[in-house]
Amino acid sequence: MRILLTNDDGINARGLHSLITELNTIAEIYVVAPRTEQSGTGHSITVFDPIKAIEANIPGIKKGWLVGGTPVDCVKLATKRLVPESIDLVVSGINHGSNLGTDVLYSGTVSAAAEGVIMGYPSIAVSLDSFDPAADFTFAAGFTGRLVREILKEGLPKTTLFNINIPFRPAEEVKGIRLTKLGTRNYDNLFDERRDPRGNIYYWLGGGVLNEEQDPDSDVYAVEHGYVSITPIHLDLTHYGLVKKFSRLSEQYLNYLLRGE
Amino acid sequence: MRILLTNDDGINARGLHSLITELNTIAEIYVVAPRTEQSGTGHSITVFDPIKAIEANIPGIKKGWLVGGTPVDCVKLATKRLVPESIDLVVSGINHGSNLGTDVLYSGTVSAAAEGVIMGYPSIAVSLDSFDPAADFTFAAGFTGRLVREILKEGLPKTTLFNINIPFRPAEEVKGIRLTKLGTRNYDNLFDERRDPRGNIYYWLGGGVLNEEQDPDSDVYAVEHGYVSITPIHLDLTHYGLVKKFSRLSEQYLNYLLRGE
Repeated sequence: MRILLTNDDGINARGLHSLITELNTIAEIYVVAPRTEQSGTGHSITVFDPIKAIEANIPGIKKGWLVGGTPVDCVKLATKRLVPESIDLVVSGINHGSNLGTDVLYSGTVSAAAEGVIMGYPSIAVSLDSFDPAADFTFAAGFTGRLVREILKEGLPKTTLFNINIPFRPAEEVKGIRLTKLGTRNYDNLFDERRDPRGNIYYWLGGGVLNEEQDPDSDVYAVEHGYVSITPIHLDLTHYGLVKKFSRLSEQYLNYLLRGE
Repeated sequence: MRILLTNDDGINARGLHSLITELNTIAEIYVVAPRTEQSGTGHSITVFDPIKAIEANIPGIKKGWLVGGTPVDCVKLATKRLVPESIDLVVSGINHGSNLGTDVLYSGTVSAAAEGVIMGYPSIAVSLDSFDPAADFTFAAGFTGRLVREILKEGLPKTTLFNINIPFRPAEEVKGIRLTKLGTRNYDNLFDERRDPRGNIYYWLGGGVLNEEQDPDSDVYAVEHGYVSITPIHLDLTHYGLVKKFSRLSEQYLNYLLRGE
């Protein structure tokens, strides 16, 4: 079995290395990860610049590259160019910080797994709900290892990735596993306004998560209450209900829209 | 009425200016658009750098800013900081080139409209199916104008954006309007491998669209066959069917996954 490992925190991130140690007894590991941290890059790809890929000498893996691009670049480049063998699973993470609710759209970690699905591979994204630089990844990596064994045995539904968020607490205090839907994440004080030495205004994106009431079935609720959250995510954004509804618009109305007559 | 206009081709793009001319008789126009082209930036946000916003003097609009960031940055900054009045509609486009099928995930144009929805505003993304630098935007802008009038009158369903793709052909040869689902877009020869003067390998992301059979209900099919495509897009990526299916896993199995016991 072969696993492609990537992330958005960059190739030196502790979360990624905790997974190498855990997964290299299960499968051959290929690491293709960004050279620098890529948080917030979402599903972006590098179209105006060349992408450098340099072989990385990482103990315990089959082969690795550090890539001067986004997490999605990494997965595209790995599966289409760098890794000659076929991949059985794409694992993105472990991210240092959760990726929950609406935030998955901004997340390089989740987008890398989404790209894995687009390229046709079973894919998971894993995040630990802590920004503490000293956070212990042991439980999160161990859990991911057990999950990966199951996935390699049982397979994953096509066109779906699993987004996994792990609460940051001692293993014995993790209450269980919940299959969840995406919750909502909204922020206040989103921009910090400053002036440069020449008096020009600039902004830092910042903001704190608003403490909103959450659906008990949501990923946000699950992690807040001490559960591992697993959300199956699909990539067909079509709102089929509305396609149906608007398809009932009259020819006359549509013709008016089209030609203004 | 007030419209926020943005894009991913940059504030000087012809597609954006064609919309100013068309929409400024309908509503007050605020333009908040990237300083430089941002194609392929998807839903990325700028978290590691400050974001500069400079007032732009554009005739025919209420107020404008050019922003040193992504299309999603523009919408966040506009709605949270720059535009003091409430916005009635976010319009992203007109993009120079289509945004169809799976490609909407990489599209800054569509992501800007998605961010509009996340911020709570009715939002549409508009793209013209041509990369010809001299492409005529007249029909596309006129159509968008008629659609915007209707949307401002009738409203849009919350949490949904409309992704509009307009075929590039003379107005009288546009066959009609179709409400569509997202099709598929796959590419071949995705990476072009080169060597720098020091012998190091680098890659350019390129590739041509694979000519695949398309569902007749899809956006790709509609535009290829001369129809304006309107796809309602929602942002809840949860695969509810699988949440339900996996929720039937036994406590024992989940406990094994959790603790390995």
